Order: sequence, then C-alpha cells, then structure tokens
Amino acid sequence: MTTEQLIIAVGVILLVARVFGWLFRHIGQPPVMGEITAGIILGPSFLGRFFPSAFVWIFPPSSLPTLNSLSQLGLLLFLFTVGLQVDLRHIFKQRAAVILVSNVSILLPLGLGLGLAKFLYPEYGGPNMAFSAFSLFMGTAMSITAFPVLARILKECNLLETELGALAISCAAIDDVSAWLLLAVLTAVARSSHDWGHVAEILFGLAIFVAVMLVPVRRAAGYFAGFYQKYGLGMGLFSALILMMLASAWTTEKLGLHALFGAFMAGLAVPKNPKLISEAVEKIESLALALLLPLFFALTGLRTRIDLLAGERAWIYTAAIIAVAIVGKFAGATLASRATGTPWKDSAALGVLMNTRGLVELVVLNVGLELGILSPQLFTMMVIMALVTTFMAAPVLRKMKITAQPPVQEAASGT
Amino acid sequence: MTTEQLIIAVGVILLVARVFGWLFRHIGQPPVMGEITAGIILGPSFLGRFFPSAFVWIFPPSSLPTLNSLSQLGLLLFLFTVGLQVDLRHIFKQRAAVILVSNVSILLPLGLGLGLAKFLYPEYGGPNMAFSAFSLFMGTAMSITAFPVLARILKECNLLETELGALAISCAAIDDVSAWLLLAVLTAVARSSHDWGHVAEILFGLAIFVAVMLVPVRRAAGYFAGFYQKYGLGMGLFSALILMMLASAWTTEKLGLHALFGAFMAGLAVPKNPKLISEAVEKIESLALALLLPLFFALTGLRTRIDLLAGERAWIYTAAIIAVAIVGKFAGATLASRATGTPWKDSAALGVLMNTRGLVELVVLNVGLELGILSPQLFTMMVIMALVTTFMAAPVLRKMKITAQPPVQEAASGT
Repeated sequence: MTTEQLIIAVGVILLVARVFGWLFRHIGQPPVMGEITAGIILGPSFLGRFFPSAFVWIFPPSSLPTLNSLSQLGLLLFLFTVGLQVDLRHIFKQRAAVILVSNVSILLPLGLGLGLAKFLYPEYGGPNMAFSAFSLFMGTAMSITAFPVLARILKECNLLETELGALAISCAAIDDVSAWLLLAVLTAVARSSHDWGHVAEILFGLAIFVAVMLVPVRRAAGYFAGFYQKYGLGMGLFSALILMMLASAWTTEKLGLHALFGAFMAGLAVPKNPKLISEAVEKIESLALALLLPLFFALTGLRTRIDLLAGERAWIYTAAIIAVAIVGKFAGATLASRATGTPWKDSAALGVLMNTRGLVELVVLNVGLELGILSPQLFTMMVIMALVTTFMAAPVLRKMKITAQPPVQEAASGT
Repeated sequence: MTTEQLIIAVGVILLVARVFGWLFRHIGQPPVMGEITAGIILGPSFLGRFFPSAFVWIFPPSSLPTLNSLSQLGLLLFLFTVGLQVDLRHIFKQRAAVILVSNVSILLPLGLGLGLAKFLYPEYGGPNMAFSAFSLFMGTAMSITAFPVLARILKECNLLETELGALAISCAAIDDVSAWLLLAVLTAVARSSHDWGHVAEILFGLAIFVAVMLVPVRRAAGYFAGFYQKYGLGMGLFSALILMMLASAWTTEKLGLHALFGAFMAGLAVPKNPKLISEAVEKIESLALALLLPLFFALTGLRTRIDLLAGERAWIYTAAIIAVAIVGKFAGATLASRATGTPWKDSAALGVLMNTRGLVELVVLNVGLELGILSPQLFTMMVIMALVTTFMAAPVLRKMKITAQPPVQEAASGT
C-alpha cells in the first residue's frame, strides 16, 4: 500500500465516520452508531454498488491487509480500554439483583441462540464447521451486551447516577466479561475442530490464564498505581501498560484463545485508580479510537454484503434473528429484574438497555467470520441485528419517558 | 501479517525502544537517541548478524509492508506536530542575528555538501540517478537541524528561557522550514529525472501550494482557534485537524512533492493558540510517538547495514562526511552568530546545538533511499553521521559548562 493509498483510505474513512457520527448525534443516537453506519455505506452494499470506481479508488484490494492490521491494532487498544473501565470489585460486591439479571440476561438469549442455530446451520454455517462451534457462536452472539456503548448512552442520557443506570452498567460489565470468556472458549472449539482433547487442553490453559491475570498479575500491576501517584502517567508508565496489553494478547493467542480476549483481560488486571484509568483511557482514545477504530467499522462494512440477502427467505431469517435477539435479552433482563422487586417500568427499561450490542457484537461477528464459523450471508444478517438492537435503545427510552430529549453537544465519540 | 506477528513486532520494538530511551536518559542523552539506537540494534547490523533466527521471528519479510505503512502514518503525525510547534510569526519578527545565523548555517553546509557530493557520486550515487539530484540531496542532508530534538535538549537542559536558547530555537525553526522546502524541491528533481520542464512545473505548484497554505488556509484555520475557545478540543475538532493534515499531505503527494512536507505545512497553518497547540500535540504524541515512531526507527535500523561498510575506504568516507557535517554547521552558525555581536562562548554553543540532526535527518535519509538517490552504503554512513552529530551536543555543552549535569527524570520521549 503506497503512502498515497494510505492517506486516501484513512482520510476518507475518518471523514465519513465523523460526518455520520455528527449526523447521528443530531438524531439522538450515539455517534458510534453513525460511525458503524458509515462503514456499511463505504462497503459493497452502497458505495461499491453505486460508485464502483470510487470504491476501488478508496479500497484497492492490495491495501486491505494493511488496513486490516491497522484496525487490529485499534481493536486491541479498544478492548484494552474496555477492560480498563470494568471494575471487578464492584461486580463482586453487587447485590442479588445484578447477579440474577446478568445471569438470566445471558443464559436466556444464549439458549435461544443455540435453538435458532439448529434452523440456520444447514444453510448458513461455514463450510466444514461443526455444529457445536456454530451453535455456541450463535448463542454467544445473541447474549452480547456492549458495555462501552451502554456506558456512553447512559452518560449521554444522564442516567449513569440513577439506580437504573447503576444496575444496567453492572449487569453489562458482567455480560461483557462473560462474552469474552465465551469467545475464548468458542475460539478454542472452532480452531481445534472436534478434537475435544485439544479443546479441554485450551480450556485448562484459559483457566490458568484467567487465574494468573486476576491474582498475581493484578497484584503486581498494583505497583503501577503507586508509580502513577509518584510520577504521573509519563511515557514510561504508558508504555508499560501498552506492553502489558501486548504481552497478554500474545499469550492468549499462543494458548489458542483470541488476542482480543488477552487485551481485555490486561485492562481488567490494571489497578482501578480512577485518575490513572481515565488518563490512560483518554491517551489511548484520542488517536486509537478516533483514527483506527473507524477503519475497523469500514472493514466490517466491506464484509457486510446486503446484496447477498436476496430473496424473501433471507429476510425472513433476518427478521427471526432480530426477534430472537430482542426477545431473549429483553425478557431475560426484564423478568429477572422484576423478580428482584424492581418496578415494571425500570425493569423494562433495563431490558431495552441490555439490548444494545453495538461495537462488541461487531467484534465477535468478525471473529466468527474469520474463524469460518458463519457464512457471509449470516454475517450480514447478524450485523443488521446488531444495528437494529442498538439503534432502538435511545428512541424507545425516550418514548418510555425514561430519558429527556437527546442531548446535542460536542462530545467524545460514543464507543 | 497475522495478528500474532503484529503483536510481536510492535511489542518487541516498543520494549527495546523504551529500554534504550531509559538507558540513554541516564547517560545524559535525549531518550530519542536511545530509541534510534534501539532501531539499529534490532536491524541487520546487530540482531540480524548475531541472532538471525530472533531477527526473522520479529521481522518476517511478509510483515515489512504493513510495518512500513504504520510507520508512515506515525511520521505523518509526527511531522504534523513539528509544524504545529513552529510559530512563523516569531520567525518573521526575529532580529538580524536569527536571519543571518540561520541563513549561513544552512548555506555553508549546503555548499560543503554539494562539494562533497562530487567525490561520493561515482561510488555511492543511486543507479540511474542524476548528479543534480544527488548533490542537492547531499547538500540538504548536511544542512539539516532537527527542530524537535533541539527543542527537547534545550528544555531538558533548562536553556529554553535563555537568550542562547531563544536564538537557537528560532534558527532551528527556520532551518526546519528550509529543510522541508529543500526536500520538496529535491523530490521534484529526483522524480522527474532530468525533465527540467517538469521540475519547473512542480516548483510552480510548490510555490502556489505554500502561498495557499500560508494565507487562505491559515486564515480559514483561524476558525479552529475560535471553535477551540468555545468547545475545547473534542473529537470533532481533533478529527478536523487530522483531516486537514491528511488533505495537505495528499495534495503535496499529488503535486509531485512529498507527503511529509504537506503534513508539516498543515501543522504550520494551524493557528498558534498555545493551549490548542499543546493539547493537540499531547493527544497525538501519546500514542503516535510512543507506538508508531519507534517502528520508524526500527525500519531505519533495518536499512542501516553497517556490515556493508567493509574496508578502510568506506570508513574514511564516513569520517569525511562526519567532519564536513560538523564543520559546516558549526562554522556557519558560530561565525555568523559572532558577527552579529554574540560572545564567542555562546556563539560556539549555538554551533554545537545547530549540529543536532537527529530524527529529521533520518526522515530525509529514508526519503533519499526510497527515491533511489543514494546507495545503502551511503545511507548507512549518513545515519552514523546523524547519530554522531546529535550525540555530541549534550556532553559538549556540559564540557563547555553551558549546561549543568544531565537531568534524570521521568519525562516524555525526547523526539
């Protein structure tokens, strides 16, 4: 990829992402939804279909490997910031409601996803992919709640300080940890195609890895907090954090898990000094999320082939997937929440909030596509499902009078 | 390049760069010198020679194009921050001393470089490269002063507020602008191989481009300062700055100049609101300079083949290049400064300071190598020259009792 191609691709993607982010904020959606939409617009579904020469100018096939590496780097950094922002101590201390809601809101969609997989597998499963991996993937994909998008929506709607907000964010954090654990298991299953001895080995490695990260590494990383209090977040400490993330990502990759899981776990292991966390997140966000993450959306857009969804049948499946996804999450979260005594209205709002799958769902879907678990058609259907379920949160909450009018302001990107 | 290769390359480069940066700070050198040295250590001169299997593990040939694109992105961002930090108004208002010193300290080494080129051309000129381009390149390479490294040295030695420091930084800023102009001309000459009509066309384009950037674009960019005062540096404004840089880089590339020149000019055109500048630089530095710039040093190291300098003859040439580089800059700056009435001691110190070529020299050398102007041997000699001339500043200034002991502290990278 020449420097000129690099400039064009990065520049166009950044420009379109920002314009759509701005537009979406003005219609009361988190900007990240605009950035994701921008990626799909730039893909074969729209730009490639109606302006093929512009499409080839922006994305010459020779430049895709490099763009992919850049977006991988962005994703690793992003998952690290997600892990940084999850505080396990809060989760461990949570009351029964959180435990129940999060468990049910994972298990119900997971179960529904496993069931749905039965119908989808013959037509949309990846070639040579075992049903076990496929169904586990569908279950995982259904049970995702995107912690970062949810946090941003709650913040932008001034719900973060309310009881509903606190409940939602804790549940989403648990869901997030569970989703990445499931993804790790899934990668192990998909990569070792039916060699269950090998899967067991990888799962054993996973258990050891999580234990090592959460106890000795987390304790050793406590030194970072002390160093931070003395010297602030200079180049040395910042580099140490990034290196810790890369080392963890490399370890998970070597264990047969997924590098993104390692990046997330590294973030989890960093001591939760609020100032250290917010400074580190800001340092990473400014460039990685502004510049590299839109590349990931664009590459997701390149893989989203709405033109492949020809025929009524495909659209019926898409509708079924969306329905199952919404019902599973909504029913799971709402009923469990109501069962612990939360009023119906707040319980329902929680159900809507937990449905935001956003960016995390896209990451999981891309992993599934790369591992050959699902076909490009099913990938596209699932991307549409991720968009719809995330899209509906803000307007539905407004309709329910949970939130006021959409805030319009110059804000950081809603990742 | 797989995700695993990406993690290994980025992680190893970052680790070694930071360790050497830390070591160098402890011997009184700016950390950036350590990072550059780390790049050479990781290259074929050391790691490739003594640990070939580790070398191939870190830099498999298939991953070089991607690493190159990543480092290009880092360089564009870096040149943008350099331009951001140069305030043309200061330069225009400077007194005679600055004008005289900067002009002489460019023209003398430029002339000496042109002379030296005569001897080097038969043996070390790139194949099919005209003498005109080669000699212009040698002159440019000799006349470089690295504004960012100089600024960092002055700051770390507490000289920035002194008269000497102010003089040095203003001269370096002019030298920097001149160097990038020369590089633009040079690229035009080298790319259009002897078609002087084409060169004239490109130079005409250059003149128009500079005029447009410095008057209408600079005035339009004044809007950024107003926007900043109202809303701060949010995602929107930050993206607009990056987009402006990419657009400018693309324009220069299209004009037959060099993309890096465009990135620098874009920085120059941004209004010099001190808070806006420092915030923007910090946002870019944290990740781009910490993560991407070491990749550039590593790639420079990959091209630095000390093993090619076999035989006495090559080392004699290297010594001659170093001598000419030091004498040209030192004599030019010192004599011109003395002529304007500065005491001898300060004049000599200025001569030493103006000799820091550092990172900017490496950028110019890499451009020369990519354009095929110079051979890998001469490239290696020039890299050694850049290291020696930058290396000597701190200890010589201490010997001259211009500065106190080296400050040892947790500081940002000295780029």
